[in-house]
Amino acid sequence: MQFHHHGYVSGDPRIQTAAGTGVDRPEELPGEVDVLIVGSGPAGMLIAAQLAQFPDITTRLVERRGGRLELGQADGIQARSVETFQAFGFAERIIAEAYWLTEMNFWRPGEENPKNIVRGGRAVDDATGISEFPHLIVNQARVLDYFAEVAVNSPSRLTPDFGWDFQTLEVTDEGEYPVKVTLVRSAGPDEGTERIIHAKYVVGCDGARSKVRASIGCTLAGDAANHAWGVMDVLAKTDFPDIRTKCAIQSHDGGSILLIPREGGHLFRMYVDLGEVPEDDRGAVRKTSIEQIIAKANEIMHPYTVDVRSVAWHSVYEVGHRLTDRFDDVLAQDRGTRSPRVFITGDACHTHSAKAGQGMNVSMQDGFNLGWKLGHVLEGRSPESLLDTYSTERQVVAKNLIDFDKQWSTMMAKKPEEFANPTELEDFYVRTAEFPAGFMTQYTPSLLTSDDAHQDLATGFPLGKRFKSARVSRVCDTNALHLGHQATADGRWRIYVFADAAKPGAASPTTDLAQWLADAPESPLAATPQGLDADAWFDVKVIYQQRHEDIDINAVPEVFKPEVGPFELTDLEKVYGVVDGDDIFQTRGLSRDGVVVVVRPDQYVANILPLTATDELARFFTPLLKGQHV
Amino acid sequence: MQFHHHGYVSGDPRIQTAAGTGVDRPEELPGEVDVLIVGSGPAGMLIAAQLAQFPDITTRLVERRGGRLELGQADGIQARSVETFQAFGFAERIIAEAYWLTEMNFWRPGEENPKNIVRGGRAVDDATGISEFPHLIVNQARVLDYFAEVAVNSPSRLTPDFGWDFQTLEVTDEGEYPVKVTLVRSAGPDEGTERIIHAKYVVGCDGARSKVRASIGCTLAGDAANHAWGVMDVLAKTDFPDIRTKCAIQSHDGGSILLIPREGGHLFRMYVDLGEVPEDDRGAVRKTSIEQIIAKANEIMHPYTVDVRSVAWHSVYEVGHRLTDRFDDVLAQDRGTRSPRVFITGDACHTHSAKAGQGMNVSMQDGFNLGWKLGHVLEGRSPESLLDTYSTERQVVAKNLIDFDKQWSTMMAKKPEEFANPTELEDFYVRTAEFPAGFMTQYTPSLLTSDDAHQDLATGFPLGKRFKSARVSRVCDTNALHLGHQATADGRWRIYVFADAAKPGAASPTTDLAQWLADAPESPLAATPQGLDADAWFDVKVIYQQRHEDIDINAVPEVFKPEVGPFELTDLEKVYGVVDGDDIFQTRGLSRDGVVVVVRPDQYVANILPLTATDELARFFTPLLKGQHV
Ligand SMILES: Cc1cc2nc3c(=O)[nH]c(=O)nc-3n(C[C@H](O)[C@H](O)[C@H](O)COP(=O)(O)OP(=O)(O)OC[C@H]3O[C@@H](n4cnc5c(N)ncnc54)[C@H](O)[C@@H]3O)c2cc1C
Ligand SMILES: Cc1cc2nc3c(=O)[nH]c(=O)nc-3n(C[C@H](O)[C@H](O)[C@H](O)COP(=O)(O)OP(=O)(O)OC[C@H]3O[C@@H](n4cnc5c(N)ncnc54)[C@H](O)[C@@H]3O)c2cc1C
Repeated sequence: MQFHHHGYVSGDPRIQTAAGTGVDRPEELPGEVDVLIVGSGPAGMLIAAQLAQFPDITTRLVERRGGRLELGQADGIQARSVETFQAFGFAERIIAEAYWLTEMNFWRPGEENPKNIVRGGRAVDDATGISEFPHLIVNQARVLDYFAEVAVNSPSRLTPDFGWDFQTLEVTDEGEYPVKVTLVRSAGPDEGTERIIHAKYVVGCDGARSKVRASIGCTLAGDAANHAWGVMDVLAKTDFPDIRTKCAIQSHDGGSILLIPREGGHLFRMYVDLGEVPEDDRGAVRKTSIEQIIAKANEIMHPYTVDVRSVAWHSVYEVGHRLTDRFDDVLAQDRGTRSPRVFITGDACHTHSAKAGQGMNVSMQDGFNLGWKLGHVLEGRSPESLLDTYSTERQVVAKNLIDFDKQWSTMMAKKPEEFANPTELEDFYVRTAEFPAGFMTQYTPSLLTSDDAHQDLATGFPLGKRFKSARVSRVCDTNALHLGHQATADGRWRIYVFADAAKPGAASPTTDLAQWLADAPESPLAATPQGLDADAWFDVKVIYQQRHEDIDINAVPEVFKPEVGPFELTDLEKVYGVVDGDDIFQTRGLSRDGVVVVVRPDQYVANILPLTATDELARFFTPLLKGQHV
Repeated sequence: MQFHHHGYVSGDPRIQTAAGTGVDRPEELPGEVDVLIVGSGPAGMLIAAQLAQFPDITTRLVERRGGRLELGQADGIQARSVETFQAFGFAERIIAEAYWLTEMNFWRPGEENPKNIVRGGRAVDDATGISEFPHLIVNQARVLDYFAEVAVNSPSRLTPDFGWDFQTLEVTDEGEYPVKVTLVRSAGPDEGTERIIHAKYVVGCDGARSKVRASIGCTLAGDAANHAWGVMDVLAKTDFPDIRTKCAIQSHDGGSILLIPREGGHLFRMYVDLGEVPEDDRGAVRKTSIEQIIAKANEIMHPYTVDVRSVAWHSVYEVGHRLTDRFDDVLAQDRGTRSPRVFITGDACHTHSAKAGQGMNVSMQDGFNLGWKLGHVLEGRSPESLLDTYSTERQVVAKNLIDFDKQWSTMMAKKPEEFANPTELEDFYVRTAEFPAGFMTQYTPSLLTSDDAHQDLATGFPLGKRFKSARVSRVCDTNALHLGHQATADGRWRIYVFADAAKPGAASPTTDLAQWLADAPESPLAATPQGLDADAWFDVKVIYQQRHEDIDINAVPEVFKPEVGPFELTDLEKVYGVVDGDDIFQTRGLSRDGVVVVVRPDQYVANILPLTATDELARFFTPLLKGQHV
């Protein structure tokens, strides 16, 4: 965490100094906004927290509810989300209060007496070390709280505008604020009052029944039938020994439960399978009572009993596998002729079962993908064409998710006798672990992802996948740290220069590259506006092959030690060496001749280049930087 | 973190449900209080945060300042303090914002050109793994903020009463509130107004010039002369390569600097030696200007320069080695005839240099020692005699501290030519590292610490030292955790039952002990009042020698799985197995026949016993429990 460099800050350093629109932020929703976010679920809150880091942009978020979410909804937090929370600065806090999922157990009908369930197998979570972050379970409400805190503590001082129901929108071709949005007050004394807002961009984060989606003519397509579960968050007495461990439980007659222990040591959630919902169900399944859910759970758990003492929340969660074909308002035939003005994210685009614990997670990644792009375009860093990449990139991810979830759901719904062998379910779970952990997303070559011509220079940073952190040693303070964790969600591009073997400052490709980055008119850094800190748009870090003791920080080129803030202080925290016994060049398969790794603001690897490939580096950024070479 | 067990809590689980005096806490200082704490420094705030966990006790804290501390004072946080913060629930947050001290460098006059300082040596901090917690640097103000947050979020909803200046007190022999305290309003509209408060106990945490100390007739004795340093917290440009590493810098002519990098990446502190203050100085040294301090610093740093751009805080910190002979109001000749009513802590009892970074840390441990004792006596758990142990235990610690600090200061003040060899200073630093890390405190046998008859059953838990955590595997949720970190600062005694080798629940000494603990009238647990949870006073945990997979939690005796809260939910989080490859029985030298380790609420090891020594266990607690056997 960096602070004090604009002068001493007394108090919580997480509260950033207000700037731009945050200095005098109007309480009332203004008539014209740059970005209007609809919905304060995980997708909407992440985008809000991200755009709040761009204080010159007026971002508002409207939410139908009168206040914060209090209960229910999703609770599974994959490691990729925790990694994202780290970038937003609250990982350590949410980790401290969440349930840590370290093992999943599989229960099935006993061989001797199939009417009794028995523990069939145990699967260690992330046995292969996919991530340094844990897999957590914590209520969605708390995730939203943390994002809300980031947003309000940001320079923009963003807070959600509760009690506004989005009705419809119209994209006009007029003026600076071409999207005309109709809202209605849904809470408070003036409930029912209509209000028109004009926006440059609208982001529909309004969930599965999205009206934003409807207003841009998108529809969810997919399975006709839904699958229903009774979901309950309860406090109970039970003799089931694994009540504090995640379990998939299958009973002899096909009933199944997904048991999710929850934060705090006592609460747990059960998803009790209520089966496929026939098309002519007409909502009957939704009338399943909590008593029925509890009774069903007890049947499945036999010989164990679950004596529910307090019900925190329950619901019938009914959802099919559905997906829209586009995530913005540009029709296929118009793609390339105009840029999108309206986007949809999360459940508004894709719905699927809760069994793989993906809903909240994928929605946040939709938001993470879109947030910085809007920021860069609205700030004038990047051309509007950048916005086309959102739908292209995320629609594929959603498609993969739905395919995966179908497999997983089918597997979970199988009757015991249908399995090829008793461990088929857990084998599948273990084999596919990287997917639900959130690390299978890999963007294909595009404006934002280079082809793999130089992948061999950095085999441990697959192009298009998220930058997998590894440990390095910070020279200035001798701290062994995770390199990836030094990248916060501040909307900046990252250029990691993994140096060749020469001594810092000696004549070498690294030193030449440093010179070019600092001075060449084609360097992406040259696009940074005068008056901003040298590292305002690009965070350039260098990692030498030496240990920190062997690096003379005074010899390190200036571009890796930018001057920042009003006092022009030297930022020394961008210069690293390797950790003894945990050399990042080895763990990430980095060329000893050095390599440049370019990472997007949302943490995905965008480009890998030799140290000498300055032309290619310049060319990569040309279409991404508005002020550059035009 | 445990929560939800009294029903679902929406929002931050760190905010506990208000109870007792917290339900309707008066804003105004009441006329009668159980405990009056004077001073909101580290000692006072820790006691406040601790007593706030006892909501039936009326605790108020008066502070002369009109509001929170904003700047300056101490900044070195030893690992023992971070361990303490962990118990109070904010370690992960303060770690995230603090500077992490991982290495200390020693600079001295160059051999060729003594006028230039050169880096002489590097010493890795905690090279031997004394603690699993880091050594931190962060402003004292932030430490106080975090304790304030704990206090206000506690059941008691305690907040400091700012703007009250303690004048004097008088211990009368009358009534329930025998201490008569005179306060004066020191801020706000009614500044200057006097107020009388009656208290059961007063704790003077009012720093080096303590008026509470004066009012109980204690005086600081020690060195006549003080040592003075110019201290500055600054933002600067410099070519000194180790500016972000803690350094001891000695120049050729005897000038010396202690450089402390600070939180946030840019700020640093320098202690610039101003030498011994002659008795006839009459405050002249205190007039040293910031310009003079900066000039002196630049002289010492030659050939490097420090161009100060912004001064956050500066001061002349002048202090001698002084100590009081008692930490409460009971004169030596009266010890044993009456219990103390007034206590002093921290700088009010002991002052010493800042060089070993101890001031804030030892003061907090004074507070941690006293807080629970007051809580237990006032709640009626323990007899008043418990309070005698505070002065006895802490006075020795302070004495050791002062001795250590004298050695360290003398060493730091030596001229280069006076050293036996060039690495004498760093050798001393490395050799004595456990002391400044805060782990050398070892209480001697007393009411609270048994003799070492059974120390050999648990060689890794030295009696009288703080319980050094090690990893275990929690059976119910398969989490590998630090056992010590499961003990929060909730004022409870801990009884760790390290089991013999038998299977859980099988006939064995462990099972017999469990039975005795649960049922015997002599069991300490029997003292727990009816109506409270079974574990309200004693947190009893069991650690089996098996791995978690091999432990049937249903077979574990009930005393290790108490029923808690209004729903009588089973707390399963007290049952542990060993971690593969990191067996606590090995790492802590525990007998395979099992052993009971009793740990105090402030984390010190109080007793070690064989599983069968129930009589001894009962006898140990008899004088500590009021309701027991009397
Ligand atoms: C009742 C319920 C139960 C769920 N249970 C589970 C579960 O058990 N497990 C699981 O994994 N996932 C569950 N989910 C799904 C999971 O919560 C979603 O996948 C995740 O929240 C998606 O995030 P999102 O930001 O896309 O949308 P959401 O979290 O759905 O957020 C949409 C937000 O938009 C607001 N909104 C909607 N329409 C408007 C409007 N017209 N104007 C203004 N605001 C509007 C809503 O009030 C809501 O706050 C559940 C969802 C719901 C609604
Ligand atoms: C100006 C200053 C600079 C320091 N610099 C350093 C340093 O550089 N390095 C270092 O290690 N240590 C330093 N210290 C010492 C370090 O801060 C102490 O060791 C530590 O704070 C001791 O904690 P404490 O709780 O005992 O007392 P303190 O932190 O001193 O707290 C005492 C509190 O009591 C209040 N108080 C005093 N009298 C009254 C009264 N009559 N009525 C009501 N309230 C009262 C004070 O306002 C203060 O808040 C400094 C102390 C001071 C005062």
